[in-house]
Order: sequence, then structure tokens, then C-alpha cells
Amino acid sequence: MSVAARPPLRVALLGCGVVGSAVARLLVENSADLASRIGAPLELVGIAVRRLGRDRSDVPVDPALFTTDAEGLVARADIVIEVVGGIEPTRDLILSAIHHGASVVSANKALLAEDGPTLYAAADAGGVDLYYEAAVAGAIPILRPIRESLAGDRITKVIGIVNGTTNFVLDKMDTSGAGFSETVEVAQSLGYAEADPTADVEGFDAAAKAAILASLAFHTRVSSADVHREGISEVTAADIAAAAEMGCVVKLLAICERVAGSDGDAVSVRVHPAMIPRSHPLGSVRDAFNAVFVEAEAAGQLMFYGRGAGGDPTASAVLGDVVEVARHRVNGGRAAAETAYADLPVLPMGAAITRYHISLDVDDLPGVLASVATEFAAHGVSIETVRQQVAASEDDRANLVIVTHRAADAALSATVDALEGLDTVREVVSVMRVEGD
Amino acid sequence: MSVAARPPLRVALLGCGVVGSAVARLLVENSADLASRIGAPLELVGIAVRRLGRDRSDVPVDPALFTTDAEGLVARADIVIEVVGGIEPTRDLILSAIHHGASVVSANKALLAEDGPTLYAAADAGGVDLYYEAAVAGAIPILRPIRESLAGDRITKVIGIVNGTTNFVLDKMDTSGAGFSETVEVAQSLGYAEADPTADVEGFDAAAKAAILASLAFHTRVSSADVHREGISEVTAADIAAAAEMGCVVKLLAICERVAGSDGDAVSVRVHPAMIPRSHPLGSVRDAFNAVFVEAEAAGQLMFYGRGAGGDPTASAVLGDVVEVARHRVNGGRAAAETAYADLPVLPMGAAITRYHISLDVDDLPGVLASVATEFAAHGVSIETVRQQVAASEDDRANLVIVTHRAADAALSATVDALEGLDTVREVVSVMRVEGD
Repeated sequence: MSVAARPPLRVALLGCGVVGSAVARLLVENSADLASRIGAPLELVGIAVRRLGRDRSDVPVDPALFTTDAEGLVARADIVIEVVGGIEPTRDLILSAIHHGASVVSANKALLAEDGPTLYAAADAGGVDLYYEAAVAGAIPILRPIRESLAGDRITKVIGIVNGTTNFVLDKMDTSGAGFSETVEVAQSLGYAEADPTADVEGFDAAAKAAILASLAFHTRVSSADVHREGISEVTAADIAAAAEMGCVVKLLAICERVAGSDGDAVSVRVHPAMIPRSHPLGSVRDAFNAVFVEAEAAGQLMFYGRGAGGDPTASAVLGDVVEVARHRVNGGRAAAETAYADLPVLPMGAAITRYHISLDVDDLPGVLASVATEFAAHGVSIETVRQQVAASEDDRANLVIVTHRAADAALSATVDALEGLDTVREVVSVMRVEGD
Repeated sequence: MSVAARPPLRVALLGCGVVGSAVARLLVENSADLASRIGAPLELVGIAVRRLGRDRSDVPVDPALFTTDAEGLVARADIVIEVVGGIEPTRDLILSAIHHGASVVSANKALLAEDGPTLYAAADAGGVDLYYEAAVAGAIPILRPIRESLAGDRITKVIGIVNGTTNFVLDKMDTSGAGFSETVEVAQSLGYAEADPTADVEGFDAAAKAAILASLAFHTRVSSADVHREGISEVTAADIAAAAEMGCVVKLLAICERVAGSDGDAVSVRVHPAMIPRSHPLGSVRDAFNAVFVEAEAAGQLMFYGRGAGGDPTASAVLGDVVEVARHRVNGGRAAAETAYADLPVLPMGAAITRYHISLDVDDLPGVLASVATEFAAHGVSIETVRQQVAASEDDRANLVIVTHRAADAALSATVDALEGLDTVREVVSVMRVEGD
């Protein structure tokens, strides 16, 4: 049977914002290619929007396709593309689509990170596909490589720059020397940051993506609530300069690690700013680009790099999933079900193993370094390097820059608390984790 | 039905060299994880080797599994892993496996690039899977992203550093200033180059991978015979230094481009050394690492980076494929068949659009630059930059370094031929293509 002779697969699109309109456009522009790759044509049967009557002349489809009846639309589709975002009513719409036998392609990181297992279970029970490559790192193929390409290996670490806004801000701070607030304003004026940038700069977006990455990499359910999260709003120009002195850059990292313990393995999942060496593959990720670094026992180090956001890049990832679920409709088969068989414990932040870079303003007196070093030793933290600089203008003060060896975050944090209590320490100027060895 | 209760899938391994022994080891070490991910256990039923009696104590399997009867082995397997290499008898063994209903996972780039369509057609007719992620760029997931993740997009360009030996040699030439021959000897002493390095340094290995990449990216059959191929044995220390002066590095690139023409699109597939800017994502790929840069209309620029060779990295890619074909055995479904529907013409090298960097020793006389520029104009080649340096020691000679705009390779090549015929040009010192804008 030729491609054209097969009955078309009915596609419903939920949402027509930046991503949705790009998806609609690509569905139309690439329709012949898509049909050839799938083995059947796709037919866009409707686009659910919140309000009719807006000018949508940039979306090259019959205006009659727009509808506010999302519930009715999902009931008459083979494939439902969800690019609305948000938790409700989106969750109910996806569950309704699955209930009606549709396969679902979603870009909804917040929903998947909060309540993915409900959706996976529904898709599994319904015998349909649920794909969500676009939920993490936009156009970069990262979920399929983790789920499939590395399925014969053991992943030990995933470190991602998965939020373009924060990478843009930190990169501009690095190149300009400017502070956080003014750089966020620049990012807003260029369209790289929202008017309310909280979800990005405070790490909520990255934490959702970390939860999804960790769940897939470690075959363990990790929700956004399990992810330790710190944003970049307290990163200062001085922190960036201190990183530069060490040959490092500051990045907001989504870190998912498999950690061996005496009671078996566990996972650490966290989002926070950290210094990483410029020579690390992630160190040269500039502007609003995303990248995900993966380490696996047999494969070694891998990195995936590309655009993490924007209408077209996200639509590319959505359509890759659409082709896959459509092929399953034509040829049979479906995606491997979610596996959470490993069910590893998720460690609290205090148990994460990391390194600290600490900058202290201290009295320039004999014995200060000894008292500082004593606090590290008391908490079982080993010092890798210390650099002492006497401030030129005020010769009774000095600056101590200390980089530790790897230790539990709780021990490092307690050491910093103890340093703050020392009489000879005037100020703990900055504390930042160091990653990427 | 629990995982253990399902009947095991019988796995046959053809070949037990560096890759094969790593595959066998991972099959044993990761067997519990693999069973959980697949939904059924894998059972290694035999390893075909050329000769029995060798010490294989590093392979943690029952010695009774080794056999010289490869033909008999493939007849009793559900999944056949082929890591023997070579064209015959491997092709017949794979066809026999398919004929017996087995799914096949192969790492055999030479065979796939020479005669892939025969194998794809057999797998399609037999209703079984044929996967070969390990054939290109070792552990880096690149074929599945191109076949699946980007299946909704239009790929315009794939540029790969897909041969670790040549990247190691060129990188060492760049950092040491040494010449080609002595650097190859260093690579051989460190195990990065074979005793006979021809397949690597002359670009045969990269050309096979380029054919596979282009076939998948452009839905067009491209065999290794279609690939224009130049190796790195004529790259000199002076070429590397000239590249460095331009802020570039020299890499052996596998370039697959979709080119718009007046008669419709065509593809250009070629392997040759070229200068690329150090700031390009491929510019910082060091040592024996591989990377593949992909450009697609909607996704924009992507890069995939990792280890391109070695037992464990290659085995990781093989086992990812094994899990996928095993899941299909358990859950139904199979890979999308090869598509060659686009069937784009493959351009001859002369029609490839590229840029040249040309270094000339010329007489330091008035009018020389004019006569040189006239030859470029006569061939319709536009010059981007010219730099003229008078040689300090010999004041009747000068060095001209010319970088062109983009033009057809035939026109660029004819220009060089014409320059060689000019009386005032003493020597064409070096000619190298420039890529990566």
C-alpha cells in the first residue's frame, strides 16, 4: 500500500503559542517528508486554544481548525501534541487523550517532573505511547539517547546546562564583569528572560528537567520535589571573577549522580550554581545554548549540545517524537514502558559529595590560617589549595581563598558556619561549589 | 509475567576481539539490569571465533560457548551481534541470521557503507531489526538521533570528526608543531594508530561513516564509493601553522551537505582535511575523541561528542542496540525500515561548495598580486582576504596567503592549477579547504 493510500493519522495540537505555532507550521511545510518517513500521512484535525478571534495568520492552517473545545478535540485524534504547559487542566487532557486511545507527545517538563508516574501508568495501561523529548533541553536529543542508546550501559553521572536564560546571564556576567541584576535586565531586553524570571533564575525550570533526567538515567522515580534547588540570583560579579582566577566559569548545573554507598547505591539530584573548569566540555557552552554531559561506565564521557529553547528547536523535538509514535501506529510496537525497577534512594543534599571554593576576609594576624585550617580538620574536610593575599589598601586584612577536596555537603556547610563564628574571620565573602573533575 | 519467568532471548556473538570481549563482559556483568530494562533475560548461547584454543580467560563466560561454527550458531539465536568486521563471510552470516529470523546488531561500517541496502532489504523482508549504532562514532549516540529524534526536521548538514586516529594525529601536530610521519609514529607507540594506518589516515574509515551518515540524514542511498575521499598524509606542519595563524585548526572532516540547486536539491558527501575555526564546536575536539555536528532547519546547530572507538565505548553502543531489538522481541514492533525515498543525486566533488586557503611563494615584484587576482576572477572565484608578507631573509620573494569566498570546488581547483602556471608564482606552498562558518 502506498503512503498516500494509507488512512491519515489524525493529529490534535493543544496550544498555539511560540512552540505550538512552530509545530503547526512544520506539520504543514514538511508534510510530504513526514508521510514518507512514517509510511502514512498526518492530518492536523484541530488546534485547541484558550480564546478564538486572535490573529493567527502566521499559522498556515485553515482557521476552522482552531477550537476552544480541547476535550472534544482529544477524543478524535490518534496523536495528541501537548504544548500548553501547566499542571491543570493539562494533566486531565492528557489522561483523557490516553483514555481515548491516542498517543501523546508532550513538552511539559513541569507536569512530567511533578506527576510523571501517573501519566506513564496511564499510557502503559492504555497501550499507547507517551513521548516527551522536548521537555528537556529543547532540540537536543537527550532523553532518547539516555532511554535507548545507553540502555545497555550503566550511567553514573548526568550534568546538564539545561536552562538557557541562566546560561545567557552567567555567560554575559563572565564576559562583561557586570552584576546579576543588570545582566538580567539585558537578558529581558533581548528576549532571553521573562518579565518575571523567577522560574528560570531560581532554578525551578532546571530542577524539573533534573528530575526527568535522573528518573531515566537511574531507572528510579525522582520528582521535582526530590531535587535540591538553588538559583543564581545570589551569584555576584566577585564570584565570577574568583572562578576566572581559577580557570573556571560559573554555570547553573543540573547534576544527577549515582553514588556508591556502604548500603548500596543511591542517587544525588541537585540544581545549583557551580564553578567548572573552562576546559571541561560544559565550560565552553556560551550564550543561551544548552548542553548535557553524560558519563557511563562503558561509554565514558559523552556530551550533547544545542539549542535548549525557542519555537523551532522545541518543535523539532516534538515532531521527532510525533514521527516515532506515528511509526508505531503504522508498524505496531510502542515505546519501552517507563522503568523504575532500580528504585534507588535519593540522597538529601547534605550527603551529596562535592567541593567548595570559599573566599574569606580575615585579620592579617599570625595564626589566622592555623585557626581556619583547624575548623576544616574538625569537620573532616580536607583542603586542596589555600591562597592568601594581603589587601593592598588595608594592611591589617587579608583574603584567604580555599578550595577543598571532595566531601559531604553537610560537612562543608558546617565548616562554613563554623568559619563565620571565628573572631578572626571578618566575612565569608563567597562560597561556591566546584564541579566537573 | 515477571522478568525471570519470561523465556530468555538467545544471543549469539560473532567475534571476540577487543569489542567482542567487551560485549561479552558487559552482557554478563549487566545481566540483571539488562533483563529489567528489556523485560526478559538475555542468554549468551555462543561466541563464534576463528580459532579455538587461544587464552580467553579475560572473557568471563563458560569456555564451552566458544565455537568456530558461526553458521550453526546464528541458526539458534534470537539476536545476533556481529563484531567481526570485513565484507565476507560476514555478509553471508548476517543474511543467514536474518533468514533464520534473528535480529541483528552490527558494528560493521565497511559492510554497511558498501552494501547496506542488501542487508536492509533482507531485514525488511524478514520482518527483523538491523541496528548499527556502533558503526559510526563508537559510543556517541548519533544514528538514532538522526533516524528518530530529527525525523520531523530537515537536516541540512552533518559534519563529523569520526576517526579518532586522525584526530589524535592532527591534534598532536597542532600542539607539538611536529610533522605528519613522526606524529603517526607517536600515535602507533601509544596504540592510537594501527601498524598499517592506511584505513585511518587515508580516510577510508571516515568515508564509510560519511556514507552511512549521509544515507540516514538525507533519506538517500550513499555508498562509500560515492564519497570523495582525501586523507591527512599530505598535511604538513606548515599547514597546521597556517591554520593557527587564522585562528583555525586542521581536522579530517566527514562532510554531508544538502545543497539547493536549480534542478532541486542534491547532496555532497566528502572526507578531507580542512581548516575550521577554533571557536567552532568541532574546533575544540581533542585527542582521539569524536564529535558530530548536525544542522537542521528547525533544530539549528547540534553537536554530539564522545569516544569514537575502543572496546568498552563500542560495546556500549552495541548493547544499547541489543536492548532495543530485545524490547521489540518482547513487546512487538520493530525499527522503522530504511527509507531512501528522497533519492537525491550525489554531487561530484567539483560541484561541492567550499572555501580555499592558499599559500603562495611569489616574486616580490609590482603587479604580482594583480596577476594572481586576475586568475581568481577569471575562474569566477571571489577573494575574501589576502595577506602579503615579504620574506625577511630573501627580499626578492614574498608570501601571499589568500582565503576565498565560497565557490565550486572545480573552480577553486582550476584556479590553483592556473596559479601554478604563472611565472611569478614560484610555488603553491599549500592548499587547504576552509569549513565551518
